[in-house]
Amino acid sequence: MNNSKSASTAKRTIVIVGGVAGGASAAARARRCNEAADIIMFEKDRYVSFANCGLPYHIGGEIDERDKLLVATPELFEKRFRIDARTRHEVLSIDQEAKSVQVKNLESGEEFAQDYDRLILSPGASPIIPPIEGSKAKNVFSLRNIEDMDRINQGLSSESSTRDVKQAVVVGAGFIGLEMVEQLHRLGIKVSLVELAPQVLPPLDREMARLIEEELERHEIQLHLGDGIQGLKVEGDRAVGVTLDSGMTIDTDLVIMCIGVKPNTQLAKQAGLEIGETGGIKINEYLQTSDPNIYAVGDAVEYEHAILEKSMRVALAGPANRAGRIAGEHAATDQSPSMAAVMGTAIVRVFDLGAALTGLSEKMAAKFNRRAKSVIVQAGHHSGYFPGAKTITLKLIYEPETGVVLGAQAIGAAGIDKRIDVIATAMKFKATVEDLTELDLSYAPPYGSAKDPVHLAAFTAQNDLRGFAPIVAYDADLAGKQIVDVRTLKEQEKLPPVPGAYQIEVDELREHLDELDPEQPTVVICHSAKRAHVGTRILLGHGFKEVSNLTGGMSIRRLMEN
Amino acid sequence: MNNSKSASTAKRTIVIVGGVAGGASAAARARRCNEAADIIMFEKDRYVSFANCGLPYHIGGEIDERDKLLVATPELFEKRFRIDARTRHEVLSIDQEAKSVQVKNLESGEEFAQDYDRLILSPGASPIIPPIEGSKAKNVFSLRNIEDMDRINQGLSSESSTRDVKQAVVVGAGFIGLEMVEQLHRLGIKVSLVELAPQVLPPLDREMARLIEEELERHEIQLHLGDGIQGLKVEGDRAVGVTLDSGMTIDTDLVIMCIGVKPNTQLAKQAGLEIGETGGIKINEYLQTSDPNIYAVGDAVEYEHAILEKSMRVALAGPANRAGRIAGEHAATDQSPSMAAVMGTAIVRVFDLGAALTGLSEKMAAKFNRRAKSVIVQAGHHSGYFPGAKTITLKLIYEPETGVVLGAQAIGAAGIDKRIDVIATAMKFKATVEDLTELDLSYAPPYGSAKDPVHLAAFTAQNDLRGFAPIVAYDADLAGKQIVDVRTLKEQEKLPPVPGAYQIEVDELREHLDELDPEQPTVVICHSAKRAHVGTRILLGHGFKEVSNLTGGMSIRRLMEN
Repeated sequence: MNNSKSASTAKRTIVIVGGVAGGASAAARARRCNEAADIIMFEKDRYVSFANCGLPYHIGGEIDERDKLLVATPELFEKRFRIDARTRHEVLSIDQEAKSVQVKNLESGEEFAQDYDRLILSPGASPIIPPIEGSKAKNVFSLRNIEDMDRINQGLSSESSTRDVKQAVVVGAGFIGLEMVEQLHRLGIKVSLVELAPQVLPPLDREMARLIEEELERHEIQLHLGDGIQGLKVEGDRAVGVTLDSGMTIDTDLVIMCIGVKPNTQLAKQAGLEIGETGGIKINEYLQTSDPNIYAVGDAVEYEHAILEKSMRVALAGPANRAGRIAGEHAATDQSPSMAAVMGTAIVRVFDLGAALTGLSEKMAAKFNRRAKSVIVQAGHHSGYFPGAKTITLKLIYEPETGVVLGAQAIGAAGIDKRIDVIATAMKFKATVEDLTELDLSYAPPYGSAKDPVHLAAFTAQNDLRGFAPIVAYDADLAGKQIVDVRTLKEQEKLPPVPGAYQIEVDELREHLDELDPEQPTVVICHSAKRAHVGTRILLGHGFKEVSNLTGGMSIRRLMEN
Repeated sequence: MNNSKSASTAKRTIVIVGGVAGGASAAARARRCNEAADIIMFEKDRYVSFANCGLPYHIGGEIDERDKLLVATPELFEKRFRIDARTRHEVLSIDQEAKSVQVKNLESGEEFAQDYDRLILSPGASPIIPPIEGSKAKNVFSLRNIEDMDRINQGLSSESSTRDVKQAVVVGAGFIGLEMVEQLHRLGIKVSLVELAPQVLPPLDREMARLIEEELERHEIQLHLGDGIQGLKVEGDRAVGVTLDSGMTIDTDLVIMCIGVKPNTQLAKQAGLEIGETGGIKINEYLQTSDPNIYAVGDAVEYEHAILEKSMRVALAGPANRAGRIAGEHAATDQSPSMAAVMGTAIVRVFDLGAALTGLSEKMAAKFNRRAKSVIVQAGHHSGYFPGAKTITLKLIYEPETGVVLGAQAIGAAGIDKRIDVIATAMKFKATVEDLTELDLSYAPPYGSAKDPVHLAAFTAQNDLRGFAPIVAYDADLAGKQIVDVRTLKEQEKLPPVPGAYQIEVDELREHLDELDPEQPTVVICHSAKRAHVGTRILLGHGFKEVSNLTGGMSIRRLMEN
């Protein structure tokens, strides 16, 4: 165990570039670790330590007061931490030899050199603005900081506009894009959402994203998926239309660009610090760059991905804050705990639903040539007999040879954060599907079920891995299979069965075995794969050669592309 | 990996004693594992597979329809699973030699023998009724099954009573006792709660239980803690008062006994099956008793406790259901996954708060001679700047030598289930405090914080373990210490400081160092131990010899007994 007390009085100057999330965490931790250090934090914008994840919610008015977003001010940094936090100061260059940075005061225009013993870079990332016509129009925005938020709010207020904002286009259906869609809708604005990928939330697998698309459609959001923006139609200094690659033009009063971010690595590159394969600053376990006196944290760096065991950019607040804390300590004392690999755990609320994920999607597993299989279960977020249970759709992705859990995704109105956090926690310890079946989770009717959705997903995967009840993918090609639909006729009327399916209710199955061919590969289907599990076991128990259960059932298969 | 297909057609008779939770799970799983088996389930009561954890909520009307509690009927067992589920059938004895049970039909009085190849005992536990005067009065109830619930509901309905129920006494402040208190209060009844232990929820540590007591007091529940019942005052066939050991008598119209349960081991004992030290039936990892043809699951058995590594009774639904599933499979096929050790994870809602726990309390650690230390943190269940954040009080208990997590407790209005489940999941893998600091949890403002309460508790414990910011217990004896209260004067007015404390706001601390003695052991205190952490580091950074932070701060210390 490190003894940090010994190093805590080392005289040194610690300079931090960037005063949000990672930078602010690093600064505060550095002071707590070292009372004798000089700590100077430069931030080129007007605000430090603001709640960047809260910005969309103030635009929509869900967070009512702007001040709530200002977590810590330069005054607090000075008073509590003796940190010299200087806003509107841009660091222009690093002289590694001289251990000095060149700084520009953006208010006065003055430039000066600041020496450092340790330098921590937390430069963040910048919104990508596509190089298209009209992107500089005054009602085209991106959202990254308080200034951006203020500009959008000004653009939305009728006093400052030539007209009311009645319709808006959000470009990009990632996390921030969806949060903006929701908040603009909350303001009574008709919102169109454009996304180049054929789905919203590209980190999710297709069918899970489809559930979120349905939620957006329920709120009358116009979805334009698999379509890019070709240009903006401008009148005067304002964009009045968005032209898509498909040729369509969407009339609009406002455009928000949420296409993604590019890491701010200019300073690091200019200083010759090593850049990784995915374009982020390379760091070691103590967040040190290729120059051990220079640390880097946040959206500009590459973290180790726990499942892929590769370095990559993971632009999320959780890792940035944890990294800042470690870099601050190491810069202050030359020792610290190490930074753990990240899992990419993330969550977003979309109207009455939420989407959460951790680890690899099936898509990502395929991209990185990892063998993966998955199950999808649906279950209440608490006991079904207790009022208010909301359905969680939970997908569990695992390695077929070992049963090691690779990732999970959850969609639902409540309790998805808990299930994804539980699985992410288990994954830290390289958990298998069998480990998940054994978790001892809290249960009382208002909170959960004796068999939690995590258990149900793990049981299903375990049954598959053991060959006890094999599953097939929700979108499997069923041509040539003997298909047995064990739903009731009423259910089959509402959602028609796969063509050619035998229609035999599960409770009648044993009486109708002679109508089926035990030699033929058979797939059993129901609404959510629970009764089909019973059916699968009945057929296997009666000597059928090859039987499997369509994972997720018709409730998921209906989400297939045609 | 087991191949269960091979064994799934073995002819055998499986007899199950008890048709709720563990028994019902075992029966259904046995059928799914073996189509050829004869499966007979005997239940002495009128109902099988009912939602026992939901019973209090139907009494209070929160679960409106009684039928919702009947998860599966004998008809469903027959139709879907070909399980012969016989209610009102009591198994009287086991003949191990003959592999036969003697059964009595409680309706007809008829007795008969039933052979078995495998026998699964799921006899549950029975409420303890103290042998006091009046305990048989017609308005004295316990709550274990549907019949009990119906009787209580009848006792509550004015038609069947000689008078309205205006006041009630609940005896026992465990999980069911508190659920009954809440539900009776919901019906407008004035409720008194009597508990022999000096606190509610005896599995919790004292200060955490105190937060729940305050919630009960806020709802005008009369608490009688550390007091036993001596007898009931009876008029006619009704109890009209409860007399306590302290001499007090509480007038009442209704008494609910929730003192605890005793395992139903009569059948097992009569058959000579081995009984463990804590009075439950001894089982192995496949739930086999000392007779390998006889399995046992549920509240009557002893499970392995994951942290204590000892067998003990854990009367919870989660383990019962998982055990039933494993026993059912093993009884049907002679192979199965093994039963994992349990953590005792549990949760209960109490009005607007909830209490959850996993693993060892400090009390329990002391009882079993395990060295344990703890931290207490308070943090919002999601970002503080997002509307609706509710405070979670989270206690993390760990082994001081190794940092291995031993247990956790949480009190709060939202999100406590998530934090306890995350910690319970980590504990399955023998996680250390450092592991918890590294968890990659989901974060967006409506769901959590970039630094989750779990992280904050783990950071605090890690800081303590590393000697970076030592903590002292919330109720530590501070006599002879130099105490520095870094709260504002306004806060100190509301909640007065410990006598003799220096009153120096954290932001002024550096200016007042010369008023303090750096050689004297010092304790820093604030409201919830966050600013005191900063203060601790300032003093250590300025050469103070021995400084520690009062964990939980004044908000927890105020809960101390006088």
